[in-house]
Amino acid sequence: MNEFYQKDIISIKDFSKDQLEKIFESTDKIISLNPIDRREICKGKTLGYLFYEPSTRTRLSFEAAMASIGGNSLGISDITSSSTQKGESLADTVRIISIYSDAMVLRHPLDGSSRFAAEVSDKPVINAGSGTEEHPTQAIQDLYTIKKEKRKIDGLKIGIVGDLKYGRTVYSLLHGLGNYDVDVRLISPESLRIRSDSTYEIKKKLDYTESTNIEDHIDDLDVLYVTRIQKERFPDEEEYLKVKGSYVVGLDLLQQMKDDSIILHPLPRIDEISTDIDKTKNAKYFQQAEYGKYTRAALLGLTLNENGF
Amino acid sequence: MNEFYQKDIISIKDFSKDQLEKIFESTDKIISLNPIDRREICKGKTLGYLFYEPSTRTRLSFEAAMASIGGNSLGISDITSSSTQKGESLADTVRIISIYSDAMVLRHPLDGSSRFAAEVSDKPVINAGSGTEEHPTQAIQDLYTIKKEKRKIDGLKIGIVGDLKYGRTVYSLLHGLGNYDVDVRLISPESLRIRSDSTYEIKKKLDYTESTNIEDHIDDLDVLYVTRIQKERFPDEEEYLKVKGSYVVGLDLLQQMKDDSIILHPLPRIDEISTDIDKTKNAKYFQQAEYGKYTRAALLGLTLNENGF
Amino acid sequence: MNEFYQKDIISIKDFSKDQLEKIFESTDKIISLNPIDRREICKGKTLGYLFYEPSTRTRLSFEAAMASIGGNSLGISDITSSSTQKGESLADTVRIISIYSDAMVLRHPLDGSSRFAAEVSDKPVINAGSGTEEHPTQAIQDLYTIKKEKRKIDGLKIGIVGDLKYGRTVYSLLHGLGNYDVDVRLISPESLRIRSDSTYEIKKKLDYTESTNIEDHIDDLDVLYVTRIQKERFPDEEEYLKVKGSYVVGLDLLQQMKDDSIILHPLPRIDEISTDIDKTKNAKYFQQAEYGKYTRAALLGLTLNENGF
Repeated sequence: MNEFYQKDIISIKDFSKDQLEKIFESTDKIISLNPIDRREICKGKTLGYLFYEPSTRTRLSFEAAMASIGGNSLGISDITSSSTQKGESLADTVRIISIYSDAMVLRHPLDGSSRFAAEVSDKPVINAGSGTEEHPTQAIQDLYTIKKEKRKIDGLKIGIVGDLKYGRTVYSLLHGLGNYDVDVRLISPESLRIRSDSTYEIKKKLDYTESTNIEDHIDDLDVLYVTRIQKERFPDEEEYLKVKGSYVVGLDLLQQMKDDSIILHPLPRIDEISTDIDKTKNAKYFQQAEYGKYTRAALLGLTLNENGF
Repeated sequence: MNEFYQKDIISIKDFSKDQLEKIFESTDKIISLNPIDRREICKGKTLGYLFYEPSTRTRLSFEAAMASIGGNSLGISDITSSSTQKGESLADTVRIISIYSDAMVLRHPLDGSSRFAAEVSDKPVINAGSGTEEHPTQAIQDLYTIKKEKRKIDGLKIGIVGDLKYGRTVYSLLHGLGNYDVDVRLISPESLRIRSDSTYEIKKKLDYTESTNIEDHIDDLDVLYVTRIQKERFPDEEEYLKVKGSYVVGLDLLQQMKDDSIILHPLPRIDEISTDIDKTKNAKYFQQAEYGKYTRAALLGLTLNENGF
Repeated sequence: MNEFYQKDIISIKDFSKDQLEKIFESTDKIISLNPIDRREICKGKTLGYLFYEPSTRTRLSFEAAMASIGGNSLGISDITSSSTQKGESLADTVRIISIYSDAMVLRHPLDGSSRFAAEVSDKPVINAGSGTEEHPTQAIQDLYTIKKEKRKIDGLKIGIVGDLKYGRTVYSLLHGLGNYDVDVRLISPESLRIRSDSTYEIKKKLDYTESTNIEDHIDDLDVLYVTRIQKERFPDEEEYLKVKGSYVVGLDLLQQMKDDSIILHPLPRIDEISTDIDKTKNAKYFQQAEYGKYTRAALLGLTLNENGF
């Protein structure tokens, strides 16, 4: 029996390095299979989804993943148009979706929602983003992309730039990177530094520096992970405009980077990476989106097949 | 040829006891099949849906049912975002959905809408709730649950509690129960009693008593069917608050019930059944939801296969 | 290799008569196949859709087409509820959908959007309506319907009536008809005549007359193609009411038509064709909708199979 069978996927913190490597191997296998064999993996199985925050991107990634391995998807993509408007509890809605599916994907604004859902569901629950910190499948996608494009994770110098305070992606990625021996530089405006209440645990596993200046690090990085700076996070617009420009990745910045460095982004991108970058060999964010489909297919394949695939 | 082949499912009144029993047998068969064989039943067939009232719950039940027997679903889950906003008639929309599918599911606020749709559609139409009285697949689901959990329907004492005036579920269930020899007790606030204009026909087939006090019946019931009391049904809030508490099913009430009694609910539940009840052996409402998937799968399998399955 | 393999479908102007005839032959084949063999054509393939204007009708036609040939569909049916609200560019959204699918369908209000999308996508892009003039799959559906119902296109007298100024359907149809030797009569209120800036190219290929009076042509036509006159197109309501009645096709008008003439409409229809017409042998608009499913299935089958089907 494979160790992921019927297991929930709630937090990246629950995964050991060894487990991550196994998922990466399964992802390699997914990619190497021809489409016809791939579709046998979850043939006739159903993925349920339940989104309390709309996220077309994440939902489609799971749907495409499930389709690629032969399964189908159904669920609630926007809870505001559903029966829960009538006041149904999360627990009841989760139970219903679990009746209609073999595994379920949940996105919810509250911390702990996925773990709670996993307790009431008798089908495996996959956290597609919850609260302020957890987005485990995004972290797995990000780690896989680094590994695939740099051939390793250990030993890399990784810059993470943008809004580090908000956005669960960064927290999940840092926890995931905690399994590896990496040199991480967090680069953000003062007001968007990583939350100190969240770093205690991360610091036990990971060394990182913090700074506000991307230029200080740019020539040294193997991986530049860019995130969006959202206007609505700033108390006044002036402060937003002040920092906005300084973190835009353009050709000028790219020229200072190592030749074999890679640029990642969880997408959607607004203007924090110039479109000039898109066709350079360093731009890997669309590749990252494609890997996201395959890492999710691997996770679903492992979760739903007793003997793996 | 099976008698349900290509037949519309418009009203529970159209089904004889014998027909209901045949559907229950087919549902038993659906449940007993392994998932792989089950998926052959409607392999490659398409269910169209057309919802003039949003009902995520019912739509997902049909979608999950169709997926479990190998078919797929497409349609309009919320008519307000569709071409009918441009003023297209129900008849035309029904014709189009019927072109795109092998059978169609319709939910519509008006009485008679499904029968009308069946006339213009050249594919079978399944009523997923229309007007004030009809929700035949819910009634079949409810009857099947009773039969399965109590091993019979004849001879049972069945309490139906809550808002009996509004909500098509109760009317359909009563018509369905009219095929059996049961002792029905309707329990509701005065202002939410079953509509007298709807009971004429029911009374011809079914004996029932009406009362306002659940305590008078609770120790005698084999089945307690609970429905939601919707705040918006009351002209003023005070009257709502007055009756609200008296119909909440909690552990205290359960203790007065027979040991082998069962509690049902069409869901979604708000607070009319305490969550304390959920883990008791008497709570069968989630089981009921699961049976709903299989009764619908059986109905679709019979409707779409000349020789049954 | 079939010439349509991996090709974008952007404009009806890109199709030669010979190519149209090949698509018609493939559609004939789709129709002649039994459903089980038909479903092998795109088994396990995924169609992505991306709608910047809602169009339930067109989306469902593609979904039903894809389902009929064994594929599945996923995407964004209403961009307003998606990540692009966060400001993502069309190019990025197209790239993502193309990662998740084998071919993609795009509807967008701007001229040139599909051609742009085809440039950034590495999967084939099918234009499901863009700007003021392009709706190539609708034109192919319309031409196929004429050919199928009249056994030919060359030599026919075709009246196109209604709002010819707005609505991309008419422009695409005229470009398509430009490949044939037909006698076209455009009939519309003065204020809704075809746009002169769009007719230059059409005139090079197609002879047509323009008039305001449907009665002048009605007894002569082989095909009457009716389009909706939208109230919102008129600067004041009085002018709308003035012209509205004169283009309603009813039994009185039908009686003046040739016995074997056919009436088409891209649907949805409001009241420009009386429902009295629906059951006459001349009414072919629902047939046209069904052919739309099969022409799209043929296009998808050709686009996604190197050696055709």
